[in-house]
Amino acid sequence: MYGPLAGADFPTLAWMRASRKVERERPPRLEYADPRGDLALRRALQSYLARARGISCDLDQLLIVSGSQQALDLCARVLVDPGDRVVVEDPGYRMAHHVFRAYGARLHGIAVDSQGLRTDDLARVRTAVMACVTPTHQFPLGAFLSMPRRRSLLQWAAQTGAWILEDDYDSEYRYAVQPEATLQSMDETGCVIYIGTFSKTLSPELRLGYMVIPSPAIELFTATKRLTDRHSSTHAQRTLALLLHEGTYDWHVRRIRRLQDARRTALLRALHLHLSDQVTVVGASSGLHLVAWAKTVPASREEELVAAAWREGVHVYPVSPLYLPQRDGTAASRPAGLILGYALLSPEQIDRGVKRLAAAILGLR
Amino acid sequence: MYGPLAGADFPTLAWMRASRKVERERPPRLEYADPRGDLALRRALQSYLARARGISCDLDQLLIVSGSQQALDLCARVLVDPGDRVVVEDPGYRMAHHVFRAYGARLHGIAVDSQGLRTDDLARVRTAVMACVTPTHQFPLGAFLSMPRRRSLLQWAAQTGAWILEDDYDSEYRYAVQPEATLQSMDETGCVIYIGTFSKTLSPELRLGYMVIPSPAIELFTATKRLTDRHSSTHAQRTLALLLHEGTYDWHVRRIRRLQDARRTALLRALHLHLSDQVTVVGASSGLHLVAWAKTVPASREEELVAAAWREGVHVYPVSPLYLPQRDGTAASRPAGLILGYALLSPEQIDRGVKRLAAAILGLR
Repeated sequence: MYGPLAGADFPTLAWMRASRKVERERPPRLEYADPRGDLALRRALQSYLARARGISCDLDQLLIVSGSQQALDLCARVLVDPGDRVVVEDPGYRMAHHVFRAYGARLHGIAVDSQGLRTDDLARVRTAVMACVTPTHQFPLGAFLSMPRRRSLLQWAAQTGAWILEDDYDSEYRYAVQPEATLQSMDETGCVIYIGTFSKTLSPELRLGYMVIPSPAIELFTATKRLTDRHSSTHAQRTLALLLHEGTYDWHVRRIRRLQDARRTALLRALHLHLSDQVTVVGASSGLHLVAWAKTVPASREEELVAAAWREGVHVYPVSPLYLPQRDGTAASRPAGLILGYALLSPEQIDRGVKRLAAAILGLR
Repeated sequence: MYGPLAGADFPTLAWMRASRKVERERPPRLEYADPRGDLALRRALQSYLARARGISCDLDQLLIVSGSQQALDLCARVLVDPGDRVVVEDPGYRMAHHVFRAYGARLHGIAVDSQGLRTDDLARVRTAVMACVTPTHQFPLGAFLSMPRRRSLLQWAAQTGAWILEDDYDSEYRYAVQPEATLQSMDETGCVIYIGTFSKTLSPELRLGYMVIPSPAIELFTATKRLTDRHSSTHAQRTLALLLHEGTYDWHVRRIRRLQDARRTALLRALHLHLSDQVTVVGASSGLHLVAWAKTVPASREEELVAAAWREGVHVYPVSPLYLPQRDGTAASRPAGLILGYALLSPEQIDRGVKRLAAAILGLR
């Protein structure tokens, strides 16, 4: 969802070994495959989701898709009619907003705070076809949706008949905390559609993700996936199935989580060292990015600050464009917000970057 | 579009060599790529289309997609509003019909004969948003759309303002004839969207195809592709780019065309030997399948005939389901039609299969 990964972190040797094995075992018939995805991959994924995310699901509930973007697109296509209300987090993931709007949805933004989506605000929404949330690591502000709010959200969905899209885009990067229950595993009414991706652990270039879909809806999603592009690339699916099956993927996730944690720690240390008076950091307990609110710079100068940072060679991104347009009035009370992704950098580069960022912030005053 | 390919015909060694090269050259940043497709692939494809299909287009007009199914889906999504009329060939490709209907199109079937789409019938259609045609090898009946009809079709499009989708799904398999001009290269008004695929020359498992789009529409198609799934798998694109660039793909196409031609010749010979009194063969001058009309069996017994063939181990497919429902009345005057794909079989298997098919037909009388 945010920021590129480092090519050097990709498990190239393991991937090539598995890929060669898949090439050597090319089947005698090359034909369109199951739109739900490769059976071996779905089996391996079912077992991975059980051990890594506590998700228990039938094989039939799993749909392999071409990245989480396709998952969002399929949800919009299958569930949204023009004029339907879709609840989104505000600020939130713009590509989700775009895709819902493309199907004629009216977006209803709900604010987020340190405990995630404000479910007290949500309670006032009486009709909606869907709510799209990032409960493990709210995008972009990084909150973990608290347990009471998870229950409120599920209760709201049961009352309104809305679907919940649980976009678990970077849940592999929960640092120094146990992974908590997903909405999917708390769901008793079959309203949660869970979305996962390999873009954050392997590569966004792969275009592989997956959905866990409540049984009554799976047929419609499968038919729609088939109409859309028949199925996702078979070779990548089979290669990934091997990595999952032989444990290499779990090993890789543990390894890359440590690597990212080292980068995160370096970033937090550098921010504390060079900018502790200037910024408030949020969303650093998981994921691959955090948000730094520049306390001394108003949101109205956010663009200016970002430009100054880029001139110093520091590629930070503004938070403001991720707010829905109709909430722009609130911008006045916000400080400037910067998104800092760290998956691509060494601890040294991070320290150097934060020093330059500090210079940019000071230069603005 | 029809029938699987043989795994043994895939250029495994060349693909693996190119794939390893791509793996070794993994970029330092793994990130979302250009939704239009990999630049090296589009460059190589531009040059391939010029030499193989006489298509001259700008690099910007090329959009790499996940197979021709996604191309059809994008066309429907971008161009069709609910209630719009879409012209399709009757009989025609069902997955195209399904995808247009899914976007609310009203299908208007136009009959085909030995020269392809009946453009005299088309002339009576005054409004349509789009016509989807397979001019090189009409699916399923195999006609090559004659030059006068190509001109009529383009003229009709210019008059009605309709788009033409030229689905060139198996044009690589023109046997013993020079490849003729595409509609795309005859188009002077920018109404033709050309669709090609690697599913028939490499593998349907790859999920790689492409579109040549008139310049004014490319931005909308690119934005829609990005919303749909960001972009197609980078690795497969880069591997294919290498094969095209180094000439291996052209070599492979020449080789597999010879292989398929040998199968086609064996099938024609076997049909002549064992069934010459019983069937009329159409559509054999190109592609990977032909249609055999069983002169002595009425369409009403087509299903029965297909079942009898399958009991003999001969996997033929009925033509009738490819006609639009509203034209079912014409079935009374048709003989039973069988689709025979041959890309998977050796000449010996083909001869054996046709003998068994003859037994099935005789058994039915």
